[in-house]
Amino acid sequence: MNMSRSGSAFTMMKRIERSKWFQGFIITIIVIAALTVGAKTYPLPYGIDKAINYLDIFITIFFLVEISLRFLACESKRHFFKDPWNIFDVVIVAGSLMPISDTEMILVARLLRVFRVLRLVSIIPDLRFLINALLKAIPKMGYIALLMFIIFYIFAAVGSIFFHHVNETLWGDIAISMLTLFRVATFEDWTDVMYETMEVYPLSWIFYIIFIFLTAFVFLNMMVGVVLDVMTRETAEEEHENQENHHQALVAQISELQAQVARLADKIDAQQDDKNR
Amino acid sequence: MNMSRSGSAFTMMKRIERSKWFQGFIITIIVIAALTVGAKTYPLPYGIDKAINYLDIFITIFFLVEISLRFLACESKRHFFKDPWNIFDVVIVAGSLMPISDTEMILVARLLRVFRVLRLVSIIPDLRFLINALLKAIPKMGYIALLMFIIFYIFAAVGSIFFHHVNETLWGDIAISMLTLFRVATFEDWTDVMYETMEVYPLSWIFYIIFIFLTAFVFLNMMVGVVLDVMTRETAEEEHENQENHHQALVAQISELQAQVARLADKIDAQQDDKNR
Amino acid sequence: MNMSRSGSAFTMMKRIERSKWFQGFIITIIVIAALTVGAKTYPLPYGIDKAINYLDIFITIFFLVEISLRFLACESKRHFFKDPWNIFDVVIVAGSLMPISDTEMILVARLLRVFRVLRLVSIIPDLRFLINALLKAIPKMGYIALLMFIIFYIFAAVGSIFFHHVNETLWGDIAISMLTLFRVATFEDWTDVMYETMEVYPLSWIFYIIFIFLTAFVFLNMMVGVVLDVMTRETAEEEHENQENHHQALVAQISELQAQVARLADKIDAQQDDKNR
Amino acid sequence: MNMSRSGSAFTMMKRIERSKWFQGFIITIIVIAALTVGAKTYPLPYGIDKAINYLDIFITIFFLVEISLRFLACESKRHFFKDPWNIFDVVIVAGSLMPISDTEMILVARLLRVFRVLRLVSIIPDLRFLINALLKAIPKMGYIALLMFIIFYIFAAVGSIFFHHVNETLWGDIAISMLTLFRVATFEDWTDVMYETMEVYPLSWIFYIIFIFLTAFVFLNMMVGVVLDVMTRETAEEEHENQENHHQALVAQISELQAQVARLADKIDAQQDDKNR
Repeated sequence: MNMSRSGSAFTMMKRIERSKWFQGFIITIIVIAALTVGAKTYPLPYGIDKAINYLDIFITIFFLVEISLRFLACESKRHFFKDPWNIFDVVIVAGSLMPISDTEMILVARLLRVFRVLRLVSIIPDLRFLINALLKAIPKMGYIALLMFIIFYIFAAVGSIFFHHVNETLWGDIAISMLTLFRVATFEDWTDVMYETMEVYPLSWIFYIIFIFLTAFVFLNMMVGVVLDVMTRETAEEEHENQENHHQALVAQISELQAQVARLADKIDAQQDDKNR
Repeated sequence: MNMSRSGSAFTMMKRIERSKWFQGFIITIIVIAALTVGAKTYPLPYGIDKAINYLDIFITIFFLVEISLRFLACESKRHFFKDPWNIFDVVIVAGSLMPISDTEMILVARLLRVFRVLRLVSIIPDLRFLINALLKAIPKMGYIALLMFIIFYIFAAVGSIFFHHVNETLWGDIAISMLTLFRVATFEDWTDVMYETMEVYPLSWIFYIIFIFLTAFVFLNMMVGVVLDVMTRETAEEEHENQENHHQALVAQISELQAQVARLADKIDAQQDDKNR
Repeated sequence: MNMSRSGSAFTMMKRIERSKWFQGFIITIIVIAALTVGAKTYPLPYGIDKAINYLDIFITIFFLVEISLRFLACESKRHFFKDPWNIFDVVIVAGSLMPISDTEMILVARLLRVFRVLRLVSIIPDLRFLINALLKAIPKMGYIALLMFIIFYIFAAVGSIFFHHVNETLWGDIAISMLTLFRVATFEDWTDVMYETMEVYPLSWIFYIIFIFLTAFVFLNMMVGVVLDVMTRETAEEEHENQENHHQALVAQISELQAQVARLADKIDAQQDDKNR
Repeated sequence: MNMSRSGSAFTMMKRIERSKWFQGFIITIIVIAALTVGAKTYPLPYGIDKAINYLDIFITIFFLVEISLRFLACESKRHFFKDPWNIFDVVIVAGSLMPISDTEMILVARLLRVFRVLRLVSIIPDLRFLINALLKAIPKMGYIALLMFIIFYIFAAVGSIFFHHVNETLWGDIAISMLTLFRVATFEDWTDVMYETMEVYPLSWIFYIIFIFLTAFVFLNMMVGVVLDVMTRETAEEEHENQENHHQALVAQISELQAQVARLADKIDAQQDDKNR
């Protein structure tokens, strides 16, 4: 009896969890949570600030209830933690539950509230799908990214060897040099950096031109790689399937024709046998 | 009799509205209107300024006449307002008709004159076609745009939490922070913004690098999405149709062959029957 | 007799004009001409400067001789001027022949020398081919360019109406405003422009954001258009031809099969006739 | 006996060279070499600095041993030097062997150590493959690069003729002008350059706008060229092969059918002959 009651509760929870209006309600709550995060960056009168704090507690509890409901509604508890999106949600909700009494930790607490906005990504199926698609595009870029890193590392090493006494804040060590080179790669006031070193090493423009050409060229190829990767995956498959269907149709039709001719041959054989008898 | 006269007037209006030279004439008027808009931004001698004002009145009346003519030439009056381009035209013409006596409203009046240049888009069919094509590309980008907004929102919240006391004009609240991040995303003096916060938080370069990589990566994928979307729509269709035609031709030819073989079989059957008789 | 001599001279001129070493020689001369143009931008000792002047006279004469030779070697004189590249060459050579005595015209004379470098484009077939390909890509962009111009024009008009008293040098009239907007479109210190107007109109950031999104979006579509245009022209054609060949081969093969079956039917008919006799 | 011993040593060397762990070990050493290069850009306490120097000597010796081993393990010594990656490795290892006693040459010595990081590229097969792919994309861009250079050269010549007295450091001679134009092409503070010359030549904005449009247009086409080149190479080949397979399958099937019909015809002939006998 207890079991059946728990079973019906279970069914009800599942029905609640899967209903359209429940999803819409959660999205609304997340958007409100996002707005409170934004509102807190403005100077607010005491009353509104306090109201937002109460709202915040409500949202935290709501999220906790919602994720518990989803966990309970899940048939296999193990399966629940196999979905990375569920782990993502649990971490975000757990994060905002952390009791932070220390006033210096207030920044961390506010930061954790911000990440609740990310739950929009996990709750809207299309966004989840999009993220999965973006993540799939990353591995293809792995070696290009490694190559890019090697280029940055070598140029940063060369740069900090030659230029570190020209400008310590830009070329002081290899990490700072890599940041400076990233700035050069985004064309951000790169000539200021160059003109400065050209005063000491008049030929140092070669260093910058080669670096810019290399990174631009490798970046261009990375971009082409991603375009091609997505293209071959999406377009070609569909096209391919279509061609395959056409091909199979033709093969089937010709096979049928062959069978027809074979039957004809049998008929003639039979005729011959008939005559010979 | 009255009706037939109105009927002939209707036919004439339609003929006028559809004639090439009428369209050319309207385009000329719009270009003149555009030029007067441009001319008004220069300091002009009194005489020319007055002439332009008279010209402006003439253009306003001409546009009113033209749109009335088009409305009258339209068979179904309801149908007229179903075409968004017609509503677009009516709004623009109505806008420049607004009587503005107040001298402080002079700016608004001038602004409304400017939008008359947009009528070029609605009058030239190729531009109208182009705009329709561009509008079609937008929905595909909807979720990517939402994702981009979430990224901006989260980084703006984090930025204004940590950096608002570093520089109030750049990170004061979430709206200003989003504008600052947009600036960073366009690489516009982004290192100035970064160096400023690095003085207080030496590791804040991580914030900027992650943000730039994320936005660049998502933007890249948005671009690829648009390219693929247009491509699959335009190229593939044509290609597909061609393949379909080829396939149908082959199927028809083989079917004909099958019929030929079938007739042959019938002939042999007949022969056999003939012999058996 | 005179005619035959002129005929053999003509043949010789043609042989000279078409020979590989003659082309190589002209390219060498053009490169030398380009180098003298570059050298003249450096302060040179008197002797070398004079030597370059003599070299320049020699190059001018050489180009004159070369183009005359090519003109004479051309069978149809009318045909010669139908090739735009020939007109291009004649204009450049004629330009550097202009007698300029006035010392103030020295700049123009030097400018005309510079354009001789462009002859490299007309002499190297691959570059000529490339330019032709680039020119072909332009018409496709016509309407997009017009749309872009309309966007710039409207925003420039609005900008100079509202902002001309904020900064006269940036928003003084519609032409200057368009230049400023082009600067904004290239992201060049666009925030400086924006922050300045935001002091007077705090909401003017909307103006810039919309402008940047519009131009970026239209530019993106222009780019996609060009990519697609070239792609469909180059790739598809080849692919298409290949498919067409395959299709024709299959059609031919099946047709042959049909003829084979038809002959078989005839044979059976003959057999039948034979029997009936 | 000596030979067999050397033979077994040879086999062992080959086995060592090809083993997975040996490759992993070399990669580890290269990464350590890279880290020492990076570490040296920081101010280090005496002890660590000395330890790094010893480590450096060990790495140099290790690389020498490794390349000798690989050379000895190579069956054909000539073949070894035909692989450009081997020459690349030998040059890098030989470079770091150079005895540099002079204190002023210390920079060169450090530079040579930096290039050892490049060995990562030659040791990881995927990176080697990637570099080969990137190198293949270059020839296609040859003529576009030449055209780009001609554009830069002509604009630099014109720029230094007109603007060299406006700003000697930006437009002093043709080389400096090309650097300035490269800066303009990357949109780096290009308006500062323009506004400066516009004070003397108010129409000089035309120069910059044309230059930016030309380079952007040519660059765009170069990009499209690379995309198309890679695309036709990668995608089309696969697609093509697939189509070719389909086509061959159909041809084979129809051929078989033809043979079947031919056998049928023979049969009927035989029947006829039979009857005629």
